[in-house]
Amino acid sequence: MKLLEERIQRDGKVFEGNVLKVDSFLNHQIDAPFIRELGREWKRLFEGEEITKILTIEASGIGIACIAALEFDVPVVFAKKTKTVNISDDVYKSQVESFTHKTVYDIIVSKEFLTSDDKILIIDDFLANGKALEGLIDLCEAAGAEVKGIGIAVEKAYQPGGDLIRSRGYRVESLARVQSMTVGGGVEFAD
Amino acid sequence: MKLLEERIQRDGKVFEGNVLKVDSFLNHQIDAPFIRELGREWKRLFEGEEITKILTIEASGIGIACIAALEFDVPVVFAKKTKTVNISDDVYKSQVESFTHKTVYDIIVSKEFLTSDDKILIIDDFLANGKALEGLIDLCEAAGAEVKGIGIAVEKAYQPGGDLIRSRGYRVESLARVQSMTVGGGVEFAD
Repeated sequence: MKLLEERIQRDGKVFEGNVLKVDSFLNHQIDAPFIRELGREWKRLFEGEEITKILTIEASGIGIACIAALEFDVPVVFAKKTKTVNISDDVYKSQVESFTHKTVYDIIVSKEFLTSDDKILIIDDFLANGKALEGLIDLCEAAGAEVKGIGIAVEKAYQPGGDLIRSRGYRVESLARVQSMTVGGGVEFAD
Repeated sequence: MKLLEERIQRDGKVFEGNVLKVDSFLNHQIDAPFIRELGREWKRLFEGEEITKILTIEASGIGIACIAALEFDVPVVFAKKTKTVNISDDVYKSQVESFTHKTVYDIIVSKEFLTSDDKILIIDDFLANGKALEGLIDLCEAAGAEVKGIGIAVEKAYQPGGDLIRSRGYRVESLARVQSMTVGGGVEFAD
């Protein structure tokens, strides 16, 4: 999506350690009117798919997912990150390995809000190693919910997550696919 | 706001320990099209005020704030909760005491995204003791940003937060003000 690529070129900042900061419009400050355009693009891409709910993960996925949900006219449910050991029977749980923070954390979603009737669009801000996405897919599988598609804002196409998830048969629509980036230099996009 | 009161009556659940669960539409599952009506109501209430940015706090404030931001046509910035001791020079920091979790945590916001040019509307899902709100006001004061108003979805009017914040001169618009609630019984609203 040209609009997002241009915004990343303009406002994204590349740091050592494979870090692309887009926190001026995507995940600390959120440019809501701009994000609405992303939501409209996902709506266009997934036109014809029956979606009953958007699933995302806290914290940075929530804003994007809620804005996109208005385009789809559906509710959002967000998976919560937790270190709580005692997980009650009324939640589905999965584990996610964080490369950034070198930790493993649990994600949970209430069984009440993810069911076998749901046709899910997963939305998240970043896709790199795909671990968070795998966790969200796990939750859907546990609930018997059908994953109709996955909408990502920024995919790091040089990392394995996108290929991994697509090879499992899921449709992943990333609005910007970063091919390479250089500290102090620019960002290049795939396709 | 009648619409929100009715939704709380219908879908809210009261538990021991002063807990009102509204996680089917407000803060785990988020009924985005419904929340848009709350955003429109805040827009109506704050009509005529110049707002440049909405400030909220992760995680449950983010979705509501982003949906409201579309009505105001402004960006959102959300304060992050952190236990990190080393806070860099490029953030404003405040402390918040959590009654629910009996802990104290830091909240931070990047100095880049909160400045003396900003005219802020603070949005949050709940107001009870007002501690989170005081932390957000602190951040605005540190930045020299002007707080034009505060929009709350659910205020527990029998707790001191609302009076406290209003007595400091801030305009607080709570769309539902709970006067009392009973486990297994109902919820009664103020006004």
